[in-house]
Amino acid sequence: MASSSSPSSLSPPKVPTELYVTNREKLLKSLRQYLIETSRPLHGFVFLQGGEEKFRYCTDHIELFRQESYFAYLFGVTEPGFCGAIDVATGNSILFVPRLPADYAVWLGEIKPLSYFQEKYKVSMVYYTDEIVGALHKISKEVDKPLLFLLHGLNTDSSNFSNAAGFEGIEKFESDLTTLHPILTECRVLKSDLELAVVKFANDISSEAHVEVMRKIQVGMKEYQLESIFLHHTYMYGGCRHCSYTCICATGENSAVLHYGHAAAPNDRTLEDGDMALFDMGAEYNFYGSDITCSFPVNGKFTSDQSLIYNAVLDAHNAVISAMRPGVSWLDMHKLAEKIILESLKKGCIVVGNVDDMMTERLGAVFMPHGLGHLLGIDTHDPGGYLKGPKRSKEPGLRSLRTARELEEGMVITVEPGCYFIDALLDPAMENSNTSKFFNREAIGRFKGFGGVRIESDVHVTANGSNNMTNVPREVWEIEAVMAGAAWPLDKASACSRENKVNNGPSC
Amino acid sequence: MASSSSPSSLSPPKVPTELYVTNREKLLKSLRQYLIETSRPLHGFVFLQGGEEKFRYCTDHIELFRQESYFAYLFGVTEPGFCGAIDVATGNSILFVPRLPADYAVWLGEIKPLSYFQEKYKVSMVYYTDEIVGALHKISKEVDKPLLFLLHGLNTDSSNFSNAAGFEGIEKFESDLTTLHPILTECRVLKSDLELAVVKFANDISSEAHVEVMRKIQVGMKEYQLESIFLHHTYMYGGCRHCSYTCICATGENSAVLHYGHAAAPNDRTLEDGDMALFDMGAEYNFYGSDITCSFPVNGKFTSDQSLIYNAVLDAHNAVISAMRPGVSWLDMHKLAEKIILESLKKGCIVVGNVDDMMTERLGAVFMPHGLGHLLGIDTHDPGGYLKGPKRSKEPGLRSLRTARELEEGMVITVEPGCYFIDALLDPAMENSNTSKFFNREAIGRFKGFGGVRIESDVHVTANGSNNMTNVPREVWEIEAVMAGAAWPLDKASACSRENKVNNGPSC
Ligand SMILES: [Mn+2]
Ligand SMILES: [Mn+2]
Repeated sequence: MASSSSPSSLSPPKVPTELYVTNREKLLKSLRQYLIETSRPLHGFVFLQGGEEKFRYCTDHIELFRQESYFAYLFGVTEPGFCGAIDVATGNSILFVPRLPADYAVWLGEIKPLSYFQEKYKVSMVYYTDEIVGALHKISKEVDKPLLFLLHGLNTDSSNFSNAAGFEGIEKFESDLTTLHPILTECRVLKSDLELAVVKFANDISSEAHVEVMRKIQVGMKEYQLESIFLHHTYMYGGCRHCSYTCICATGENSAVLHYGHAAAPNDRTLEDGDMALFDMGAEYNFYGSDITCSFPVNGKFTSDQSLIYNAVLDAHNAVISAMRPGVSWLDMHKLAEKIILESLKKGCIVVGNVDDMMTERLGAVFMPHGLGHLLGIDTHDPGGYLKGPKRSKEPGLRSLRTARELEEGMVITVEPGCYFIDALLDPAMENSNTSKFFNREAIGRFKGFGGVRIESDVHVTANGSNNMTNVPREVWEIEAVMAGAAWPLDKASACSRENKVNNGPSC
Repeated sequence: MASSSSPSSLSPPKVPTELYVTNREKLLKSLRQYLIETSRPLHGFVFLQGGEEKFRYCTDHIELFRQESYFAYLFGVTEPGFCGAIDVATGNSILFVPRLPADYAVWLGEIKPLSYFQEKYKVSMVYYTDEIVGALHKISKEVDKPLLFLLHGLNTDSSNFSNAAGFEGIEKFESDLTTLHPILTECRVLKSDLELAVVKFANDISSEAHVEVMRKIQVGMKEYQLESIFLHHTYMYGGCRHCSYTCICATGENSAVLHYGHAAAPNDRTLEDGDMALFDMGAEYNFYGSDITCSFPVNGKFTSDQSLIYNAVLDAHNAVISAMRPGVSWLDMHKLAEKIILESLKKGCIVVGNVDDMMTERLGAVFMPHGLGHLLGIDTHDPGGYLKGPKRSKEPGLRSLRTARELEEGMVITVEPGCYFIDALLDPAMENSNTSKFFNREAIGRFKGFGGVRIESDVHVTANGSNNMTNVPREVWEIEAVMAGAAWPLDKASACSRENKVNNGPSC
């Protein structure tokens, strides 16, 4: 699809079905090991229910279907209404396909035979969903009530519980509601090479779309127009029909609203000269997501104040990525980011005093109330953040962390430090007797309405360090060059002819 | 936003809040009239619950919120979590606003005072949703159990019932579950001028986007790339964040799948030379939708077979629009379209025999299994289709009609005749002893894999006739000119220099 005139150098890759085969094998291995360790027999079925299409309210408007994430992980099924099972004894995988009415062929498309799905999803067996009881009983032979490992457990980001599968006749089985969820969730935490390749493509196309946005942004546009440019680029050239999350296209003071862009704050502000833009947008490809934030001045030129805050955040971002490797605590990485940001703010005369004292008083959470980053995969906030390691902290900032685990090889985690000027946090902190002493009120006043800066990359933890899968202009001079029309990645000439305009800020 | 280099001549209009004020007044008038006619007292509250944001499965992924349609009609509220009431006695309107937690300001945006919503939505009073019981009791003064008219009724397209509002303390009210739904639904059937202006804009921007798609389509592209072009155009230049429905971008034989484009048939085919394209796509603006289908050859030049089917459908489309006026039965319009299509197919030697006999045997439903069109408004399939007039027919084709009513001034209804070659319908019809005689099997064979043609416009029923709100190239020569690069609307020069290439097909 890419041509010399195409604004993209990418095209959607074919994702091998082996990805799901590998995911199932990994689950089987973990589950069997657990059963052996707990002296339980190696039999029963992992049984999951896929998602269903949903009507909008009472109407016949059907929302575009997106598969439930655990089901997607194990089976990769794109269609609604399926169930799936894995036989713990044999490792056989079984898909249950909805039996479609004859007029489906007229309204919704060809009714495919079971063999089509067996081939498409590389499973051992296929039946209709109305055959679940019979098929599983037949496979289990003489067992009176075969055991089903059902998926039931807490999502620590939403505080919602996953719904265990249900079907007519489920009372003819024994159910185990506790074993599967933690084991399957832990499988999802560490990505296979096949998964990493998909996350990488989602990153590639989203990175390219962010660059396209930087090129096209202009004072006078509406925020949502940049959302539209991003969505179009990732769908048109990347085949990404879904986004990982609702686009956050925040400019001016909106950039201090961490989850801006939802229906009650719908990216509808007009861009003004002098605004910072904070664009947090990531496409999803073949279920796997990306989550990328770029911050830059709408007019293409950083002011010294903008550079000051931007570089404070960039230094934190880079320091964290450099420090990441297996065994490192994510809580420590969060604190490292906070400390670097506070040091920069101190250098810029925005805060005053001893940085360690600031850390003790959790001053970092005033400027960065969210966590440093989260696991990323089939869900943007991928589950498993508190399956191992410390419990969720109660301290400001730290309690917002979606994981506090030690890093492990194979994790994909976002690194997204930020620095925001949020009245709702600054005002009480400047009143508070423990923290008021740290603020240079005049400087803080200068940043009223500034908004904030976030820099977010998707980072793969490798055996010896980490690999940043996001590829967008990050240095001030890189951003200014790209916004002025330079190609990305910068060629050597533009990289050499740059004037390094990094502003170190005033000395206090 | 439109500039000389912009591919759009449009920009999103401001929609006056009077639209919802007018809608509420209309409801009040109808409801009071009904209460008077049935000798009931003029008191109580119309009480509706707005929509809520929804998580995706167990995760914290929040789907982009779109307001429930009845609530949107009366209050125009874009934010989730509201309730609304109208005092039948005084006509006062009351909004109940969710009380947001303090940290909303950090994560989701400024917490607006009640007065902001009173001003924004031009309602008489505003309270928090936790004040519903107290506020309504206070307004009702000495009444022990004030009456609530709740919204409960059948949607005849989805067969779902709307959920009546619920809140803590609702037992302190009397509930009427039957009065409101038919009266409010009937209000939605006839559009006000303010509503028509919004539907018109949705049509304008969607028409322009369809033209953009015709210009950019090329053999070798993927169907979803045209979806992306459409979505981008309507969002970028029209501010349309929502679509009326999932885009149907069907090419080749997919164009015979009436509701193609969903997750199990996701617009992923590669376009081939010689394909017909059937693109059914409509943007939603400020809650109100559009629903437009264009059919054309992917390579920009109609073959004689393509012209034959296309013109059969276009003649039906045009004849219906010419015949539309208040008092005309929609069932008759459906039959008119069928008859014209069958006559054209006979002229083209695809069917043989007496057209009246074909009509008696419902042969039209083999080629056009869907209804001629449906009411359009805040829902794509706007409700009220069977509130008045005949019950739903049981005959093929006719039973698919979403309304069988007589046209009334103020209705907006889609006119969408189609002609498809669907094996699942043709095969049994060619076997059936009553209908087999009508088919020229050789000709039918020639159209195997052809797919189908649909032409869909959104038409406003006026006092004396109708007004087509859709503005896209419809004549074969217009489509070919636009696809070859001519501006749309065509200027006089291109219109005059046209070669009229309409092909009347072979003579039998
Ligand atoms: Mn993130
Ligand atoms: Mn339609």
